[in-house]
Amino acid sequence: MPETSKPLRADAERNRRLVLDAAAAAFAEHGLEVGVAEIARRAGVGRGTMFRRFPTKEHLIAAIVVDRMDQAGARGRELFADPNPDAALFELLASMVDAAQTDRALFEAVGDTFLANADIRVAHAELIGVLDQLLRRAQDAGTVRDDVGALDLLMMFKGVCEAARPFSVDVAARQLELVRAALRPVAASERLSGRPPTLDDMERALPQVKGKASAQ
Amino acid sequence: MPETSKPLRADAERNRRLVLDAAAAAFAEHGLEVGVAEIARRAGVGRGTMFRRFPTKEHLIAAIVVDRMDQAGARGRELFADPNPDAALFELLASMVDAAQTDRALFEAVGDTFLANADIRVAHAELIGVLDQLLRRAQDAGTVRDDVGALDLLMMFKGVCEAARPFSVDVAARQLELVRAALRPVAASERLSGRPPTLDDMERALPQVKGKASAQ
Repeated sequence: MPETSKPLRADAERNRRLVLDAAAAAFAEHGLEVGVAEIARRAGVGRGTMFRRFPTKEHLIAAIVVDRMDQAGARGRELFADPNPDAALFELLASMVDAAQTDRALFEAVGDTFLANADIRVAHAELIGVLDQLLRRAQDAGTVRDDVGALDLLMMFKGVCEAARPFSVDVAARQLELVRAALRPVAASERLSGRPPTLDDMERALPQVKGKASAQ
Repeated sequence: MPETSKPLRADAERNRRLVLDAAAAAFAEHGLEVGVAEIARRAGVGRGTMFRRFPTKEHLIAAIVVDRMDQAGARGRELFADPNPDAALFELLASMVDAAQTDRALFEAVGDTFLANADIRVAHAELIGVLDQLLRRAQDAGTVRDDVGALDLLMMFKGVCEAARPFSVDVAARQLELVRAALRPVAASERLSGRPPTLDDMERALPQVKGKASAQ
């Protein structure tokens, strides 16, 4: 039924969007304790649809995390066109701080085990790829030291996200400025030791969820 | 009984030390699932003594975290005598990375709610005080930018601790070098926005454990 499959897909995609937005809003408002049935109600979708698509709250949380990573990746790709590679890199990072502020609980819920979820792993690797390209552009332009890799940056960025709380001072802005300072070009004598970590290094270092991980 | 109270205290302190060391070793080896009874057995102390002192595993974990903070504070105070304030500051940070590597699970277990525990809060504030003094010494010597505070540094340091895992590259060393780069003195035009966060800012921003927090 090629005539109907497209509208159906569009409808399913619309429902999916409604659910993810309702869930993100509910979680931000009331924490992760909000039930899946309550989220279905808020999204205005049937419980059957809801539970077929997201059998558990973990599925829902993972889907929002993937969505956020996809959004950051899309923003990063737009920034490839920015004539100022340095501004582009830090604009992506700033938007990721904002996302961390809104979705802190979600990312914490996924935590260290995120690489055990295949969808998150793919979205994460794509986002790293985008970040890597923005970083290289700034490095080629000579505004960022050329001995850091995307994962070095991402780890440093944890401090920024840690600061992305409702502090009474804008601690996150200060942290981002410090990251920027750390990334300034340096003399040969001040280059980092070793080599930048890779995604493979990261996958080996992070804990795997038993069962799930080995099933993939 | 003033004659016996001192040896008794020394004995209690020795038992406490045995328990904390046994617990830290057991947790590092087998994770936080190890039971309190098993730790008593390893420490060679009676279960009665153990449960009187540490009624739950949470008490034990908090005591180890306090112990680690005290150790870092003591190391920091020794470093006040170091003639090179810059080396002293980064030596304390490096020792804290090592501790984070060994005791990652413990600090994660305490997590965001650590300020709800009065003992941890005191140990944390004291450690911040020591870090602040080492930072100021390096700032006075002109080797570290004077617009960062101890809590800016501690947040940046989260990235370093995040990297303190068994990666196949020494990511933690790279992160520490990046923190060092971020702390280099800067021109007036590159000073951080706002003011350094304070412990009060931090206490207001971190989630409190319900009940426990209000009882203090």
